[in-house]
Amino acid sequence: MERIKEAELTNLGIKAFCRLGLPENDAKDVVQVLVMADLFGLSTHGMSRVESYGDRLRIGGINHQANIQLERVAAAMVKVDGDNGVGPLVGMHSLRAAMEVANECGIGIALAKGSNHFGPISPYLLLAAEQGFAAMIGSNATTTIAPWGGSDARLGNSPLGFGVPNPGGNPFLLDMAMSVVARAKIRDAFKAGHEIPNTWGTDAKGVPTTDPKAALDGFLMPVGGHKGYGLALMVDLLAGLLSNAAYLTHIKSWQDAPSEPQNLGHFFVLLDTKRLGSTEWLSDRMNDFAQILLESPPSDPNHPVIVPGMIELQKMQEQREHGITLNIDTIQLLHQMTE
Amino acid sequence: MERIKEAELTNLGIKAFCRLGLPENDAKDVVQVLVMADLFGLSTHGMSRVESYGDRLRIGGINHQANIQLERVAAAMVKVDGDNGVGPLVGMHSLRAAMEVANECGIGIALAKGSNHFGPISPYLLLAAEQGFAAMIGSNATTTIAPWGGSDARLGNSPLGFGVPNPGGNPFLLDMAMSVVARAKIRDAFKAGHEIPNTWGTDAKGVPTTDPKAALDGFLMPVGGHKGYGLALMVDLLAGLLSNAAYLTHIKSWQDAPSEPQNLGHFFVLLDTKRLGSTEWLSDRMNDFAQILLESPPSDPNHPVIVPGMIELQKMQEQREHGITLNIDTIQLLHQMTE
Repeated sequence: MERIKEAELTNLGIKAFCRLGLPENDAKDVVQVLVMADLFGLSTHGMSRVESYGDRLRIGGINHQANIQLERVAAAMVKVDGDNGVGPLVGMHSLRAAMEVANECGIGIALAKGSNHFGPISPYLLLAAEQGFAAMIGSNATTTIAPWGGSDARLGNSPLGFGVPNPGGNPFLLDMAMSVVARAKIRDAFKAGHEIPNTWGTDAKGVPTTDPKAALDGFLMPVGGHKGYGLALMVDLLAGLLSNAAYLTHIKSWQDAPSEPQNLGHFFVLLDTKRLGSTEWLSDRMNDFAQILLESPPSDPNHPVIVPGMIELQKMQEQREHGITLNIDTIQLLHQMTE
Repeated sequence: MERIKEAELTNLGIKAFCRLGLPENDAKDVVQVLVMADLFGLSTHGMSRVESYGDRLRIGGINHQANIQLERVAAAMVKVDGDNGVGPLVGMHSLRAAMEVANECGIGIALAKGSNHFGPISPYLLLAAEQGFAAMIGSNATTTIAPWGGSDARLGNSPLGFGVPNPGGNPFLLDMAMSVVARAKIRDAFKAGHEIPNTWGTDAKGVPTTDPKAALDGFLMPVGGHKGYGLALMVDLLAGLLSNAAYLTHIKSWQDAPSEPQNLGHFFVLLDTKRLGSTEWLSDRMNDFAQILLESPPSDPNHPVIVPGMIELQKMQEQREHGITLNIDTIQLLHQMTE
């Protein structure tokens, strides 16, 4: 691991994506999202993605000269055609479009099709919160979850995020996937030779298992069983089905078919909190809300209660000051790409 | 248990709420929601509520002559002041207001304060779906959940629902609370002398337990641990904080303080699917989406995969034909109230 300054990482990233054929403004959009991910400490969804995005851009699996089209189909509703562009580029266009109509109408939605992996959701949530917008944002994803009671992967581990601004303070940012744990955590247990709780995954027949090897051959289990199954498919209905993108098993795996468009879909619902009350009204309530939760006596004194986004925002502040901790391979790759 | 025809239950219900002081049109709104709950088989949230709603109406804890105020603060955003009316009445006013602005703008939101328990969410989802609206609806609730890692109840088991229409077919309706299981399921385990999984509840100190008695003295655990905690508080932020209603511990328990207003909040986000494509486009995609999930080979052959809303909609069809199965006490109470 190595520390790199935010400005340096941003410059390297923009150069790298320009070398991959993106116009400079598009590269800036992509890099803004990925660097924010790194600032938050979400390094699996940060600039390290330049490798997989780059692979797909080079073989034409992602369009480096995407001509993103916006169609305002109603006063507060925008359809976005991502033209198979880099995901965070489509994400940023969608975010701005949703902000614009929400600014006019109080609430607004952008529904994007023709997209790719758009990074983590937290950066979009924070950008929206900084402008006074509460947000609900989601994307569909390659299939890794079996329907509840089913026995093959037909549903993505779709991310869903919610953000609420707090003028002058920390907004609440929740960015969650639908599985109980990430696949990586099951892999770690397998490597360590540990059993896993029988709520993390099923074997290849869809039966819950405590054997990490069997779970790696099987499927991730959604949070709350049938509840997480329902939530995951609702995210896909909004992000994929209603946006006219691919959904469920129609989504091609970017690992199995890297040269083919994935046609992922996203939704961005933004809510202008400035229409609901003054910034003082909102910050008073937000601070009170946080305080009530934070003051719950912890069941383990070493682990006080936290609120969503707190860790990421603290990490961002620390890393803005001292540099971003990044895998040295990612930094080297960026240097190679921009030589 | 006894069977009662939908029309008869509706008439009895309207009479009962009129006797409790509601104007006839208001009684009709309330009863529409509660009878739909019974049709769906959600009898704990159906007409049986006439007892607790009635108790609070009689002592003035709920206002029987609520003057519900709508304020359209932006083209697609309506603030609703429920004037401490019966929950489903405030819910129906909010639903109609959100439909109206969504019809104009493609998406719309109603944020309600000054409300009470508004029944289950599925009836609102179905009414919206029948008019071509996808919906996201939520409410806050009395505190029963501890913050993740905390040790006292500061968060409600807030319900959150999503619906997507399917013209000519079954819409998807998801109506979920934030706990892994309902409190009743822990009570059943206690009565039966069974242990419970350590993911259902914590003891009074916030430590997960397998002892149902300890869990009944403690708190419900949210789905997916910190994920469900995050989701529950996001629902309260949207339903309670942004609507200017009470939230978290500011919400008074209707059992401990039945004569005081609860000032619950709700949100209704509606999305006009007709702006996104034709009814044929939508029904083709919805049927394909359902088919993909339903065709996953079941891990247990006796339990085929289902999709959200399927059980409720089948139950509704069956009960519309053969009458609604209801607790005989509820039917007797309704007869007594309307004698």
